[in-house]
Amino acid sequence: MAGQPRTDEDRRRAILDATWQLIAERGFHAVRISDIAKVCGTSTGTVHYYFPGKTDVLTEALKFCVEQAFVRQSQELRGIDNAHERLLKLIDMQLPRVGQVRDEWSIWLQYWAEAVVRPEFRPAHNEFYARWHDTVVRIVRRGQRQGVFRVDVSPEELALHLTALTDGAAIQVLTGRPGMTVSVMRELLIGFVQRELLVDGESASRARGTSLEPA
Amino acid sequence: MAGQPRTDEDRRRAILDATWQLIAERGFHAVRISDIAKVCGTSTGTVHYYFPGKTDVLTEALKFCVEQAFVRQSQELRGIDNAHERLLKLIDMQLPRVGQVRDEWSIWLQYWAEAVVRPEFRPAHNEFYARWHDTVVRIVRRGQRQGVFRVDVSPEELALHLTALTDGAAIQVLTGRPGMTVSVMRELLIGFVQRELLVDGESASRARGTSLEPA
Repeated sequence: MAGQPRTDEDRRRAILDATWQLIAERGFHAVRISDIAKVCGTSTGTVHYYFPGKTDVLTEALKFCVEQAFVRQSQELRGIDNAHERLLKLIDMQLPRVGQVRDEWSIWLQYWAEAVVRPEFRPAHNEFYARWHDTVVRIVRRGQRQGVFRVDVSPEELALHLTALTDGAAIQVLTGRPGMTVSVMRELLIGFVQRELLVDGESASRARGTSLEPA
Repeated sequence: MAGQPRTDEDRRRAILDATWQLIAERGFHAVRISDIAKVCGTSTGTVHYYFPGKTDVLTEALKFCVEQAFVRQSQELRGIDNAHERLLKLIDMQLPRVGQVRDEWSIWLQYWAEAVVRPEFRPAHNEFYARWHDTVVRIVRRGQRQGVFRVDVSPEELALHLTALTDGAAIQVLTGRPGMTVSVMRELLIGFVQRELLVDGESASRARGTSLEPA
């Protein structure tokens, strides 16, 4: 089945697949339509046909990443019944290890830099972001029904905290903050879930603390 | 005292002051050296004299923001003895309200997008970032000495969490996530400090929770 993609949708997808990788590696503004055409072995006219403006290129690249991640996560998470294990798996799948996930994070950072100065980028971002947030909310509710997560925690607030914390920690990894590795990020996120969400997590966590505790 | 700045340092500062605002409003890649020259009423040659490359422009703009924020924060925080109040003030001063602080956040987002794809941006970033992190560490240590903060909390880990959470929450505000306002961000950060850092904060916070709590 090698050779040129044959349908319109195949061609569009092949261009997108090349595009998001280029943006992830070089940055949105460093990628020209001619670079995309070259990598795809096609003409700039063909690229323009599928993606009329550069705004479309970045938005479609982010959408492509989000959809890839969503499919990957859904497949993995579906088979995990226990909500705590499911949340730990989601956290693990979002760690910016070298490779695909790191590249997807690079696209998010590129997108944020655009969305802050160009409001037209925001609606698509917010739609994609909501998917992630809602995935967390659903897992928290599941864990509350299963009795593994505290029911005095608001799923919405927990999801807000976890998504923001994940983004901020990923930035520190991706900008190479000394000492900030993927495993430090992992511990940070797992520790948060342990202390704030797990039934008895806080007391278990505090019991491991020092006896100097003044409270 | 109006008129042209007279010393080299004055001229450099005037250019920087215009530059960081332009980048904050339009994005790093949308600002050309000629735009900076135009706003400053000078030549592109003069801008190049002070900032030889575009990398210098962004790095110096971030440095300028960090220094402005540092001076502003130091002046405000110095007069606050109680570490909890001091931390709340620091949080408050970092909220991306419309105006100066929001523009400074825009520069950080621009910088992250570059640093992820261009490692040469990272050392300066990490130096600036460390300043902020260290400010939080010092306030946590102060609060532990004063007996207002839990001593079973690691100041380093707390600072890692608070800085990451602040960055992630700011992104949600700056990208216009529906419902994500400066005051929601403020509540998120204050709630975290209350639950995880304040002596008796967690028990006070849980006591306000629902009686459905299964633990």
